[in-house]
Amino acid sequence: MDVTNTKTRGKMVNSFNPADLSALDDTTRSMVTRRGRLLGPAYRLFYRNPVEISRAKGVLLYDRHGNEFLDAYNNVVSVGHAHPRVIEAVTRQMEILCTHTRYLQDSILDYAEDLLGTYEGRIGASGHAMFTCTGSEANDLALRIAKHHTGNRGIIVTSEAYHGTSEMTAGFSPSLGANSALGQFVRLVPSPDSYRIPHDKLPQWFAEQVALQIDDLKRHGEGLAAFVVDSLFSSDGIYAQPTNLLGPVIDLVHREGGLFVADEVQCGFARTGDRFWGHQRHNIDPDITTMGKPMGNGFPVAGIAIAPEIVESFGNDVRYFNTFGGNSVAIAAAQATLDIIRDESLLANSKEIGAIIQGGLRSLAERFEFLGDIRGAGLYVGVEIVKECAAKTPDGARAAALVNGLRERRVLISATGPHANTLKIRPPLVFNAADAGRLLETLELVLGEV
Amino acid sequence: MDVTNTKTRGKMVNSFNPADLSALDDTTRSMVTRRGRLLGPAYRLFYRNPVEISRAKGVLLYDRHGNEFLDAYNNVVSVGHAHPRVIEAVTRQMEILCTHTRYLQDSILDYAEDLLGTYEGRIGASGHAMFTCTGSEANDLALRIAKHHTGNRGIIVTSEAYHGTSEMTAGFSPSLGANSALGQFVRLVPSPDSYRIPHDKLPQWFAEQVALQIDDLKRHGEGLAAFVVDSLFSSDGIYAQPTNLLGPVIDLVHREGGLFVADEVQCGFARTGDRFWGHQRHNIDPDITTMGKPMGNGFPVAGIAIAPEIVESFGNDVRYFNTFGGNSVAIAAAQATLDIIRDESLLANSKEIGAIIQGGLRSLAERFEFLGDIRGAGLYVGVEIVKECAAKTPDGARAAALVNGLRERRVLISATGPHANTLKIRPPLVFNAADAGRLLETLELVLGEV
Repeated sequence: MDVTNTKTRGKMVNSFNPADLSALDDTTRSMVTRRGRLLGPAYRLFYRNPVEISRAKGVLLYDRHGNEFLDAYNNVVSVGHAHPRVIEAVTRQMEILCTHTRYLQDSILDYAEDLLGTYEGRIGASGHAMFTCTGSEANDLALRIAKHHTGNRGIIVTSEAYHGTSEMTAGFSPSLGANSALGQFVRLVPSPDSYRIPHDKLPQWFAEQVALQIDDLKRHGEGLAAFVVDSLFSSDGIYAQPTNLLGPVIDLVHREGGLFVADEVQCGFARTGDRFWGHQRHNIDPDITTMGKPMGNGFPVAGIAIAPEIVESFGNDVRYFNTFGGNSVAIAAAQATLDIIRDESLLANSKEIGAIIQGGLRSLAERFEFLGDIRGAGLYVGVEIVKECAAKTPDGARAAALVNGLRERRVLISATGPHANTLKIRPPLVFNAADAGRLLETLELVLGEV
Repeated sequence: MDVTNTKTRGKMVNSFNPADLSALDDTTRSMVTRRGRLLGPAYRLFYRNPVEISRAKGVLLYDRHGNEFLDAYNNVVSVGHAHPRVIEAVTRQMEILCTHTRYLQDSILDYAEDLLGTYEGRIGASGHAMFTCTGSEANDLALRIAKHHTGNRGIIVTSEAYHGTSEMTAGFSPSLGANSALGQFVRLVPSPDSYRIPHDKLPQWFAEQVALQIDDLKRHGEGLAAFVVDSLFSSDGIYAQPTNLLGPVIDLVHREGGLFVADEVQCGFARTGDRFWGHQRHNIDPDITTMGKPMGNGFPVAGIAIAPEIVESFGNDVRYFNTFGGNSVAIAAAQATLDIIRDESLLANSKEIGAIIQGGLRSLAERFEFLGDIRGAGLYVGVEIVKECAAKTPDGARAAALVNGLRERRVLISATGPHANTLKIRPPLVFNAADAGRLLETLELVLGEV
């Protein structure tokens, strides 16, 4: 089998290609080779020249030689690498107790109450929280419940969505590429491309796309279980505007007997700078939300929040247990992270620093025409790279050159979208103005080189 | 909806029934009520009188009043609650770095090498390790790979198996009960009931059962992807003997083009006292093994080990990434746990203390005829409770009375099997002779009461 054949090889934006092995320095090549032997062929590394990391603090990473990297990409350690309050909370809880949800404990109830208090609508009023270890598990559980509640199996997602890595969630994650089969009753709608479709036309157009797919499900004898969406459309190319996009869709979905699942793994926990949860920017009341990555600042904890009527029959007929999901230590990590987001005003910081980054990018776009579109919300910023501004032709090659050029100058970002031509800038929420300046200055240098 | 209707309510051995709420003391009732409001109806508690736990150390648990419980059930904190070496390893690593598998790190490679070194056969010689957060994710990934490799969708498991909580793994976990639907191409074989079927007839009989289900799959136009088995048959009723049971099955499965997946979540990491991995007791060479619960002593880490040829096409065509799976801190927890199992000779301890427990139980069985069968391996012991020894009629009610009687005397165990009539004794691997004595003495008291 030729693992270097990019035609058959599973698609992934910004992944190291084994064909480039000989270009690496001796130490890196030796690590990559050892890694292939021990972890096998399914793992991918970032960048043409993979990065080895030995330690990290705040927004800075260091390799074994002490070289410093600026982390403008990590949305897991959202309150910063090695935040002392999270470490202290985890250590203290490990010394006291680490057990699961079949025994009574106060801390999980206190956290659930705190977490649910960040929601509005039905979830805020009387919702339930359930805990898993990963966002994949959260989306898998959400859809198990949605199918049980509705009696339907249809799932609609956007055409470049990523929602997880379990059999079912990979089956509604088209961004995994053509070699990863979609589920039988999974239907796709196009990304709401706010760069190419006028904002005032987008909401109606998008709702029409969803309606078409609901009709197609019906034509195959199946009803809609859920429309699942990341309201930032992170893997579709980052579309943060317009925020009146999802209102018509949730109404349609409800009329058709389906549920609306807001996947908050990417856009939740203050990431957008506007509201604590991504769906709140669209002023909608979802049936289920799913959470993951930044929830415990790197500690494996994730979950769902759900309107009570949705989980009633599943809760009675079936049941849910996850050995590690919401265990004592996971809850301690999650509580510390939530406390820090509030105490350090990271929602406001995300808005402020995100604006600085977008402003700087707009200035650069005046000089570099191939920066076709600057968009995003808070510290989730997309820069679409095109061949000509007028034609808006995606330029994935130049985006890759920029991502790798930044990496060589030790600033880490990545790319996204169907053509991998949108730079994805997504630093920890503790990124400050100086960090933003360093990112922009380094980008300016690289823009002049590619 | 009547959540107290045990006919429609999802089945679970040893679960608290909300109908018994009024029998609880004020504090417990108030916590159970608050829990229902915040976590919803899908969670279950253990015992008629749920246990609140505030702290734990070694094999001892304490409630908020300082009451001490002997933990004879927890197979997650396998090296003991709050083991200082695990805490130190996690804390130190959190201070240094917590990041994922798309950057190069040495520690995951060192651990993978160490872990793979505990295997024999193809996995030991040239296998790969892949990391998830939970056993459910490990089994889900194993079956995604098995389906991809074989091109088949058929899955065969035992009739009371439990393999996970994702959509796909719940679909091959019949122990979740009749309300949780099995997958379309999932087939069941009866449990290898070593109490009722003579040991010398079991291997052939069991292989015949598997052959029948392979035939049934073929009759439905489908081939076998995998036979998945916990070689201790933990949720079927704990059948540790005979150990020549699985040899004929793996040969049959391979002849039919399927894979053999050894689910080591329950029986791995020295639990059986005989060998490090449960399948090694059967002297077989599985295609994939899956690991979970005790791997990080409570830290969410799990994974699979796989023969290289099995994952080749999946690795190339698709890919695998799990944000938290095998992150730096998860690996630190797993490495510390593996080190402790070896340094504290817990394999030998499991064998020695397991023998003491089984010996004590056999003495008790001479006086209490309803202790129908004592079986197990190492610190995984089953005691089948029957109405009469001759008739071997399962007595789930008495088993429940024993489990709850022990709980009132602050010794924690549970029950298992299709009739919930087999006591499940499964303490942390650091259980010592005095702990075993306390367990047996308390059981003796309770046996005289029920």
